Amino acid sequence: MQAEIITIGDEILIGQIIDTNSAWMGQQLNLVGIDVTRISSISDDKTAIVDALDHLYPSTQLVLITGGLGPTKDDLTKLTLCEYFGMELTFREDVYAHILALFHALGRVPAAVNREQALLPDGCRVLHNGVGTAPGMLFEHKGKHFISMPGVPYEMKHIMQNHVMPIIAKELLRQYILHSTVLTVGVPESELAEQLENFEARLPTGIKLAYLPRPGMVRLRLTAKGSDEGQVAKLVSVQENLLKATLGKVVYGMDADSLEKVIGDLLIRRKESIALAESCTGGYIAHLLTSVAGSSAYFLGGIVAYDNRVKMQQLGVEEHVLQRNGAVSEECAMQMAMGARAHLKSTWALATTGIAGPDGGTEEKPVGTVWIALAGPAGCTAHKYQFGTDRSRNIKKSAFAALDMLRSALIEEE
Amino acid sequence: MQAEIITIGDEILIGQIIDTNSAWMGQQLNLVGIDVTRISSISDDKTAIVDALDHLYPSTQLVLITGGLGPTKDDLTKLTLCEYFGMELTFREDVYAHILALFHALGRVPAAVNREQALLPDGCRVLHNGVGTAPGMLFEHKGKHFISMPGVPYEMKHIMQNHVMPIIAKELLRQYILHSTVLTVGVPESELAEQLENFEARLPTGIKLAYLPRPGMVRLRLTAKGSDEGQVAKLVSVQENLLKATLGKVVYGMDADSLEKVIGDLLIRRKESIALAESCTGGYIAHLLTSVAGSSAYFLGGIVAYDNRVKMQQLGVEEHVLQRNGAVSEECAMQMAMGARAHLKSTWALATTGIAGPDGGTEEKPVGTVWIALAGPAGCTAHKYQFGTDRSRNIKKSAFAALDMLRSALIEEE
Repeated sequence: MQAEIITIGDEILIGQIIDTNSAWMGQQLNLVGIDVTRISSISDDKTAIVDALDHLYPSTQLVLITGGLGPTKDDLTKLTLCEYFGMELTFREDVYAHILALFHALGRVPAAVNREQALLPDGCRVLHNGVGTAPGMLFEHKGKHFISMPGVPYEMKHIMQNHVMPIIAKELLRQYILHSTVLTVGVPESELAEQLENFEARLPTGIKLAYLPRPGMVRLRLTAKGSDEGQVAKLVSVQENLLKATLGKVVYGMDADSLEKVIGDLLIRRKESIALAESCTGGYIAHLLTSVAGSSAYFLGGIVAYDNRVKMQQLGVEEHVLQRNGAVSEECAMQMAMGARAHLKSTWALATTGIAGPDGGTEEKPVGTVWIALAGPAGCTAHKYQFGTDRSRNIKKSAFAALDMLRSALIEEE
Repeated sequence: MQAEIITIGDEILIGQIIDTNSAWMGQQLNLVGIDVTRISSISDDKTAIVDALDHLYPSTQLVLITGGLGPTKDDLTKLTLCEYFGMELTFREDVYAHILALFHALGRVPAAVNREQALLPDGCRVLHNGVGTAPGMLFEHKGKHFISMPGVPYEMKHIMQNHVMPIIAKELLRQYILHSTVLTVGVPESELAEQLENFEARLPTGIKLAYLPRPGMVRLRLTAKGSDEGQVAKLVSVQENLLKATLGKVVYGMDADSLEKVIGDLLIRRKESIALAESCTGGYIAHLLTSVAGSSAYFLGGIVAYDNRVKMQQLGVEEHVLQRNGAVSEECAMQMAMGARAHLKSTWALATTGIAGPDGGTEEKPVGTVWIALAGPAGCTAHKYQFGTDRSRNIKKSAFAALDMLRSALIEEE
């Protein structure tokens, strides 16, 4: 099956925002074996929208459209589609009830323009938007399916995951495609590729392996296709187990697992707790841990010790350590971790101290130098890392390296 | 003048890479007043390329094409363009000399496929590629200019900056376009739209307003066009000032400003500092502040006080407040802020405490209830907010609301 993506909105054309929606949608379709043959970004303008609909490839069966569904006057998608498909706008009580409920939950009163969002083309299937006021719409026209969604990424993703992908699976597709993603941390892509040379050479036909790198992590995606659901599932399961056995403990989880969630689950099972002392990561590890719902069961809190006086007064780092070894040192990292563990009374404590950049590097300690320490029941250890020169990537890599130190300690004790 | 961008290559369609080239080219064209009316990403396939060239908008005068110029067999752009424009490939000695020199510098010997890169359509203008083997090509055909460039971002940028932009400036241009984006925080899109009803109704011709929402923020983009650069600049400047005057202090900045950077600049100018006491935001405000390079000049640190014992022991929140009013209360937020300010010895301190969700809500304090307090030289104030049910958005909205409380206090004192 072939699909096209149309994104509507001037902000992409003038380069004010980068179109990440299309890449995400392309990935989702690709995962179920649908070929995206074209992505068109066009202006929020009736003529442009009609022209795009008029000139779809003849082989296109599915058209995903995002953008132009907001309550303001520059959003023309709904009206244009309604007219193009020869429909009439009708007021949908259920959609308006949802809009009212959203506003009510926020303690606000909807404006007249929000009421208009409940006016929808009478021949479309409404795709409920659980996280926003503009619903998605599905049109069938001359053998093609057209799906219109808001351009706000999390609203589009919500509608794709809850409505569009299930509809595609149940109503449009015929072939079984199964994915399994093995998540690794701490080993670069090129090293993984060497470790997996034999595994890859022996992969049976019908299944493929893809490397998907992120800062500090690599995801390994297995994709199998076939007409028999059971056979496809078995093929994936066998190769997934082989892959995990080959890589050992650098595998931290599967599919949508996050490192912070995996750690949370381990801590809950062990009835243990974690505290933090963050310098160069500046609160990012705390942010990752608290992004997990229910993290208050094991995350006690942390000290973001940016200033050296905070390191001394809140964590008990000794002045002579800062003077002799500097804040970016093994001794400082260990005192921070032990201080956080003692002050916050946690089972474990992680500490980070380093030079995130772009300034502050020296010959001896260049930008990207980071010390990470872990204090636990059996004592305290520290490791030095040398990351790159990009501030934002250094913060992320430091955070994942720290979380992986904790994960390794936890699974070693299991 | 109107332009279209065509990117060629399957890796964008399957979402393997995000198309940042188009955004960058769109910005460059926009800066000199050229409207990009469409961006098409298509397959590296002769039929798809010809179809795209056949269906350009009639008003398009300039077409930028990237990708499909590598030496491998799946790169078909050059051959397809050569045939489409009725030209013949001829060997260009100067281009081959450059390819040889590039290989020589790397200590390598060019393959036969690299020699073929010096075969170019005889009617095109060659745009020298100083940093790669595939040159750019400029074609003129039926009143339109077509420019083909490699898809490797730094090669494309090199050719754009050294050849394409100078040619556009000298040979093609007539009209000016100017943008100005006014950044607001704390007021939802629909409320802004009501406040701006008169402003929008009175906008002169030649200038447009667009709403670009983000969690807790809305960006308002003014776009003006005209033949006289000075008049366009004046039109934008007058309306921008009118817009700012209409909205008052909900405007926190312009264009690429971030709230955390704006606050940082204010604190540096005032030689003041900030500390944090975060509960429901879990370190996210610290992460935002420390994402700014140089933030150590004013950000001392923070306490992420997730557990109530941490609120008491590290921030001095009184036990009877937690028992009587609960952690999500005005009293607790204020004691957290005052505690952080006293312990970390900062000019200002922000505190957040609330129910991020999805669990933990009660009838009296539903998910999304957040108290934010600000302690400063003149005392401490707190505000209650009611956000939605999505944990991740509640964390973001709380963080931006807190930062905006600090910003408001700082500008009030200016």
